[in-house]
Amino acid sequence: MFPLPQKECRETATCLRLASPQDMGHYCRGDVEGECSRRAELKLPELCGVGDPTAMFSSASSCLSSRGRVIKWFWDSVEEAYWTYHRDEYDEDKNPHGVVNLGTSENKLCFDLLSRRLTQSDMLRVEPPLLQYPDWRGHLFLREEVAKFLSDYCKSPAPLKAENVVVLNGCASVFSALATVLCEVGEAFLMPTPYYAAITQHIYLYGNVRLAYVYLDSEVRVLASQVALAEVSACGWFQGVKVKGLILISPQNPLGDIYSPGELQEFLGFAKRHSLHVIVDEIYMLSVFQESLEFRSVLSLERLPDPQRTHVLWGMSKDFGMSGLRFGTLYTENQDVATAVASLCRYHGLSGLVQYQVAQLLRDRDWINCVYLPENLARLKAAHTYVSEELRALGVPFLSRGAGFFIWVDLRKYLRKATFEEERLLWRRFLDNKVLLLFGKAFECKEPGWFRVVFSDRPQRLRLAFPLKSGTRQGWPLPPILFNTKVEILARSFLQE
Amino acid sequence: MFPLPQKECRETATCLRLASPQDMGHYCRGDVEGECSRRAELKLPELCGVGDPTAMFSSASSCLSSRGRVIKWFWDSVEEAYWTYHRDEYDEDKNPHGVVNLGTSENKLCFDLLSRRLTQSDMLRVEPPLLQYPDWRGHLFLREEVAKFLSDYCKSPAPLKAENVVVLNGCASVFSALATVLCEVGEAFLMPTPYYAAITQHIYLYGNVRLAYVYLDSEVRVLASQVALAEVSACGWFQGVKVKGLILISPQNPLGDIYSPGELQEFLGFAKRHSLHVIVDEIYMLSVFQESLEFRSVLSLERLPDPQRTHVLWGMSKDFGMSGLRFGTLYTENQDVATAVASLCRYHGLSGLVQYQVAQLLRDRDWINCVYLPENLARLKAAHTYVSEELRALGVPFLSRGAGFFIWVDLRKYLRKATFEEERLLWRRFLDNKVLLLFGKAFECKEPGWFRVVFSDRPQRLRLAFPLKSGTRQGWPLPPILFNTKVEILARSFLQE
Repeated sequence: MFPLPQKECRETATCLRLASPQDMGHYCRGDVEGECSRRAELKLPELCGVGDPTAMFSSASSCLSSRGRVIKWFWDSVEEAYWTYHRDEYDEDKNPHGVVNLGTSENKLCFDLLSRRLTQSDMLRVEPPLLQYPDWRGHLFLREEVAKFLSDYCKSPAPLKAENVVVLNGCASVFSALATVLCEVGEAFLMPTPYYAAITQHIYLYGNVRLAYVYLDSEVRVLASQVALAEVSACGWFQGVKVKGLILISPQNPLGDIYSPGELQEFLGFAKRHSLHVIVDEIYMLSVFQESLEFRSVLSLERLPDPQRTHVLWGMSKDFGMSGLRFGTLYTENQDVATAVASLCRYHGLSGLVQYQVAQLLRDRDWINCVYLPENLARLKAAHTYVSEELRALGVPFLSRGAGFFIWVDLRKYLRKATFEEERLLWRRFLDNKVLLLFGKAFECKEPGWFRVVFSDRPQRLRLAFPLKSGTRQGWPLPPILFNTKVEILARSFLQE
Repeated sequence: MFPLPQKECRETATCLRLASPQDMGHYCRGDVEGECSRRAELKLPELCGVGDPTAMFSSASSCLSSRGRVIKWFWDSVEEAYWTYHRDEYDEDKNPHGVVNLGTSENKLCFDLLSRRLTQSDMLRVEPPLLQYPDWRGHLFLREEVAKFLSDYCKSPAPLKAENVVVLNGCASVFSALATVLCEVGEAFLMPTPYYAAITQHIYLYGNVRLAYVYLDSEVRVLASQVALAEVSACGWFQGVKVKGLILISPQNPLGDIYSPGELQEFLGFAKRHSLHVIVDEIYMLSVFQESLEFRSVLSLERLPDPQRTHVLWGMSKDFGMSGLRFGTLYTENQDVATAVASLCRYHGLSGLVQYQVAQLLRDRDWINCVYLPENLARLKAAHTYVSEELRALGVPFLSRGAGFFIWVDLRKYLRKATFEEERLLWRRFLDNKVLLLFGKAFECKEPGWFRVVFSDRPQRLRLAFPLKSGTRQGWPLPPILFNTKVEILARSFLQE
């Protein structure tokens, strides 16, 4: 009936595994990710081999290179779910029996505010430099605005500098470029799990860089992780694969965890001792809706242990609910890294017209502070409260913090066997009944049966999936797309098959 | 006093060479390319070895991977010229003594028309799907519009299909993605030279794919090339490097050549016999300003010899003078290729807001046919006429067709020695005197002394560089930034040093 007590699911659980290509493609299109159990497992470094990335892929596509076939496989692996959803997307008016998407991590709560702001007349500026080849790092006016924005919202002790900013068309591109310029082919980054598994593709498809999973699931995770990390990376190698860095996501996806300054310092200190880069993805930094929580950016620390190896990501996809705008940014004091990433920006450039619009938004502090942010956080909190109360009422355990767009839901009791195949069948059952969720395997979850539920959608859609409180179950006009119906009927029927 | 007669410079000249990394970085930032002599050289396949791409780069940047250092090197190699220009960019009002850029291939003639169209109220549309994760191939409404547009302007025998269209943020990205999905690391494409040398980076930086140069400089170039190509690619290998395809640019850059349907068929037939892909870059297809010339798209052919291996590129950077908009598109009937490229589109996506704007422009046929195209072509022709007449009056030989934005200028007589070092010194002399041109080495030119001059700039700027007819030489208020002054004084003084 209640979320798992945090203590319970935070017992030490640290182990390492190198990602195999088979791990990489689970429903990661759009913003689809994967899951991981919070249960304790006390095994220490459990290393798997480094497979041949192309071994599993058929060579039927005779026109493609072997890497082309791997790249296509990532697309194909989500094709069925993607088309099931997109051919039958729910729409209040046009398709009221369609699929409700609680899988993709998007914030759909503030379209009204964004639309009103983006259609103001100051947004349609066309100057010659905006239509010509840009400085590939991003127009200076935008980099200056990004530096000011991050200085203020990350609370940096000193003003951040435009020269350390590189602008790209989304954080996926930042990962792709960083992996390529920091790592040789086949090297790896350490990645605490469960994690936003699309990163696997971002660093692999172009860069051919891998992940080494660090299972960090405890209150003492920093210490535990240090034991594990020191064990495997003192020499910097796992089974012939060199580790070049560590990726941190804060607030974390899918758990919503926020690293404290102490934890950040421990990770950064550990990385420095092992000459590891740290890539800190803070793309949810303004989506902390629980007032008692304080987000601390790595850029707010008084002193970075190794500023030349610390690289911070942010973008507007999440905090400003505009994943379709394609704006991401890298902040790094390392000018070699900034320059090398900029050299790849020909392939990651965004339109001058959009650069202008982003700068206009970022400098409009009245709108951000007095209109957008308070309203967005209030709506996130209301949606989160609604869904978590429904889950409690349904007796479905879950984990949830006060940041991000998702709740980590434990549906293990509805599996007939604790297998990922079974998890996938349950996921399929949900989709067949018009609710798209993401299953745990896609987040490198070690235990089958966990799902990520995105709650940052408009109330009317949430009520479709969680209609308990709406009081309209009786005579509900739709087929069984109701989450509780599914849990109660579908999942139970699933058990009895 | 006149351009080299075409016959003279079209004697057979076909040879092959694999690009070394040292060839790759010559002033290719923005849209900077390189040159090549049209002189005959009858050597047949002259193959150079495949070097270690990282051998030449210092490892001083200790935080970067070896490929990261190569990538950074491409940026650094243009840094000096880039900053010389950007710190001192000519502006009528603010910096009348600044550098005039005749190096970057941009069309700056129609900003007034574009600005007027892009600021119309239909351009600022904000709908939820435009702000959310898109179909990574591009929004369907845009791919449909692109298919219609290409059907009409490429004069395809049957309507082209939206499913064969993939939309990316520029043709640089199309090259990067295609190279990666078609070739293994270290494989190569055949490239007729002189050519737009930025392609070297596009296929190498992420894809690690190389070019094998085919020197095609004759009236009988197709036959000659077949001799050469057959020689080296019957087995598909050069010195351990496998050749996977052929890149054609039509209208050609930097020469402005247009391939006839017969020539296209010969190339395509040759490619089919050797199972080679053909990438056809038609990014200048609507910039044919000489009425006597007819552009024929490869998509206009009644029958493609090998449609599964024929891939066509177009974008708005050149024909619509908007290189800062970042719109490029791939058209291919090969669904495996389209899908694999789409799978990389997370890193090459463009904003939904821009996708909407591009679709609006492409469907506005009244504006395109009655306003933009006729005026743009008239302005291109006038600018071309002005510069070519000035060159004739100055006694500077040049090559020029009636398409594209550039004239291929022969300044060999101003070199004291026929070396690329000397060519570079002359280029530097121009830049020191406030005119940015591109030297031939950057286009894989075999003979030092050729420069590409871009003429698609506004008359007042052209008059700065070519002021003969303006009659204002006497009392000209600027320092010696005049092209003729440079040629007459600087180049001669250069000879006498």
